[in-house]
Amino acid sequence: MYSLDRRLFAEFAGTLLLLATVVGSGIMAESLAGGNAAVALLGNTLATGAMLVVLITMLGPVSGAHFNPAVTLLIAAKRQLSVAEALAYMVVQVAGAVSGVWLAHVMFGEEIMQVSLKMRTGPGQWLSEGVATFGLILTIFATHRARPDFVPVAVGLYITAAYWFTASTSFANPAVTFARSLSDTFAGIRPVDAPAFMAAQIAGALLALVICTWFLKPAEA
Amino acid sequence: MYSLDRRLFAEFAGTLLLLATVVGSGIMAESLAGGNAAVALLGNTLATGAMLVVLITMLGPVSGAHFNPAVTLLIAAKRQLSVAEALAYMVVQVAGAVSGVWLAHVMFGEEIMQVSLKMRTGPGQWLSEGVATFGLILTIFATHRARPDFVPVAVGLYITAAYWFTASTSFANPAVTFARSLSDTFAGIRPVDAPAFMAAQIAGALLALVICTWFLKPAEA
Amino acid sequence: MYSLDRRLFAEFAGTLLLLATVVGSGIMAESLAGGNAAVALLGNTLATGAMLVVLITMLGPVSGAHFNPAVTLLIAAKRQLSVAEALAYMVVQVAGAVSGVWLAHVMFGEEIMQVSLKMRTGPGQWLSEGVATFGLILTIFATHRARPDFVPVAVGLYITAAYWFTASTSFANPAVTFARSLSDTFAGIRPVDAPAFMAAQIAGALLALVICTWFLKPAEA
Amino acid sequence: MYSLDRRLFAEFAGTLLLLATVVGSGIMAESLAGGNAAVALLGNTLATGAMLVVLITMLGPVSGAHFNPAVTLLIAAKRQLSVAEALAYMVVQVAGAVSGVWLAHVMFGEEIMQVSLKMRTGPGQWLSEGVATFGLILTIFATHRARPDFVPVAVGLYITAAYWFTASTSFANPAVTFARSLSDTFAGIRPVDAPAFMAAQIAGALLALVICTWFLKPAEA
Repeated sequence: MYSLDRRLFAEFAGTLLLLATVVGSGIMAESLAGGNAAVALLGNTLATGAMLVVLITMLGPVSGAHFNPAVTLLIAAKRQLSVAEALAYMVVQVAGAVSGVWLAHVMFGEEIMQVSLKMRTGPGQWLSEGVATFGLILTIFATHRARPDFVPVAVGLYITAAYWFTASTSFANPAVTFARSLSDTFAGIRPVDAPAFMAAQIAGALLALVICTWFLKPAEA
Repeated sequence: MYSLDRRLFAEFAGTLLLLATVVGSGIMAESLAGGNAAVALLGNTLATGAMLVVLITMLGPVSGAHFNPAVTLLIAAKRQLSVAEALAYMVVQVAGAVSGVWLAHVMFGEEIMQVSLKMRTGPGQWLSEGVATFGLILTIFATHRARPDFVPVAVGLYITAAYWFTASTSFANPAVTFARSLSDTFAGIRPVDAPAFMAAQIAGALLALVICTWFLKPAEA
Repeated sequence: MYSLDRRLFAEFAGTLLLLATVVGSGIMAESLAGGNAAVALLGNTLATGAMLVVLITMLGPVSGAHFNPAVTLLIAAKRQLSVAEALAYMVVQVAGAVSGVWLAHVMFGEEIMQVSLKMRTGPGQWLSEGVATFGLILTIFATHRARPDFVPVAVGLYITAAYWFTASTSFANPAVTFARSLSDTFAGIRPVDAPAFMAAQIAGALLALVICTWFLKPAEA
Repeated sequence: MYSLDRRLFAEFAGTLLLLATVVGSGIMAESLAGGNAAVALLGNTLATGAMLVVLITMLGPVSGAHFNPAVTLLIAAKRQLSVAEALAYMVVQVAGAVSGVWLAHVMFGEEIMQVSLKMRTGPGQWLSEGVATFGLILTIFATHRARPDFVPVAVGLYITAAYWFTASTSFANPAVTFARSLSDTFAGIRPVDAPAFMAAQIAGALLALVICTWFLKPAEA
């Protein structure tokens, strides 16, 4: 078991690099794509999926590589983290996510402090976030059961797909959602739209937990 | 061995997520691609291939991860499933596929109930479906023989290729074909064109079974 | 050891599916790409790289998965195949390659028998083919030495890169070159240009063999 | 342990093929992309990421597959290479990098000797190079700690992401930077801009070394 400070550093650094990738590649892709939003999303997807595989592979053994308060919530609900540890994880995830957004802004010569104006709202978007997070949790838990060493690749591939098959491009993460509300770029979301996204994410995660508890119990003899 | 209810849930959920991905990513890709159909197909391919790897990895140990009546038919022909089990698999595959299409429609704010108007017919299309399904079955059986833990990646990569090298973009699955006839979007197919696709798929699958029975028997000493 | 008939079938079927993929995905990609040749090459690359990984994984244990007379030549030079076996491999590779091209033509509703009019000639192209084949052989031999189970993925990734970093888009295979001369589509090459490509490929392969013999001998104590 | 001459050959050949890929695929992608720079970067990214996985897999067991003076510097700082060995590595890395650029030029029928006119300067670019190299070193060291056999894939995926999430498209390598200053193509950088890139790379690498020394020490009991 790693000491808590190193585990928190892993969550902080991982979430920071994840958000720098999501927001940075969104800025890069949109600026180069000449108005073709599908080409921009291809670049954004490729970068995000690839980075997720790397981050979960290298930081998983240290902290579990959650990078996501919804995941941490479920792990705590399964009593694999204490309440205090879980809260500390969530705090550094949010801090890392915001730092990652700001780092992307500085790299691309943007204003550091921004507020997104991009509207993302409505039942289709909320359902998308519920489905996206449900699928993410199912992917994590079921792959962990079937083949633990494949979890990093499975999560990277799942998010690659989810960027395209959900109407919201799959935020699936409350810390990511908050941090992206602070970027008025390709990946942004209006702060006013963020709470409903987060609620849908938590709902999807809890539903996945209930189903996985039944579905993934040990096989019958 | 998992209980039948969990195996059927795996087939249902897997086929649902597969179709939500095929149809959802098709809608997303086409709406963003500004009329460049190759860019749209890139997004559709990336999402579908990635999701297949995830679904087969995590659900394979539970149900075998068929998601495809043609696969279930061959597994039953090899007496690895009873007739009753095979029929139950097929029923939930079709139910899951249709549910997945409808879920995609709701996420993207489309009418739930649709009928496709997209014509996909003619000898080139039928041959393509036969070839696509032949290749899929060969991939599953031969990879299972050569390196079982690689089957999920092999199927994902095979379909990635088959979306491009066949003239029909490779449905290769009767349940998928039926469900896609209920979506008047990028991934759709007219109901009147579906039966010929299905017949070609079954023919390709049976031919693959015959050839694999000879080709994949144990190596000589 | 598999019987020769099954090994030859593996070489025939693998080369057939490889060429169907190269030519078929080229037709599909070009027809959809609206004149953007880089988008077309992306689709062509994705399909080819993915199919190579699948084919080498599933057919490698049977025949070695050469699909390439230049590879077979070197394997015979290393006395791992008899001359008669090597010649038989090459015959079925060429037959499979041509069959794959024709299959692609039929699937896409093209004339079966075609002759390419696409000029591919000049020192830059020939150097590209020498480099491409040198790199392919180095990839096969050095990866086989370092990590044998990774050879299928390494070859798929190498060709993915080589489609872009060589000026010729990396044929790197005499049977592929001959077969592509019979397709007046995206992947074609004029018959008159094929012999120089093949000569460059053989030269690159032989140079790689010489270098690998020194470079890959067992490590010193 | 391999003899020094073979280790140096591995560093030379690997860096050569890496640069031929970076520069060659840049020329190919830009020439085909019809002015859409995001499409060009997709081709450049795909080729570079794929080639890195291949090169590190097959040459890692021989030389460590650094291909990068910043990596060699850190390995020497950890006393896993002598000063003389490290200097020899760096010399052949630079020689290989320049040779790779020239090879790309010859393949594509360009003037061999070029000097880049592409301006890449400013605080955002320098920060990007520091971040890119920091992340590269973290990826190498932390993945080596967590799962050594995944390092080649992790580095390939990391650079895939870094091409998009940094404002500089992630050179992250002083030898690469120098060599790219000798190409007035897609991948080029003005010679006058190169030293600041290199300084930022070294700074990022050293910071990563310091952090990794703390972060990656063995886990507490």
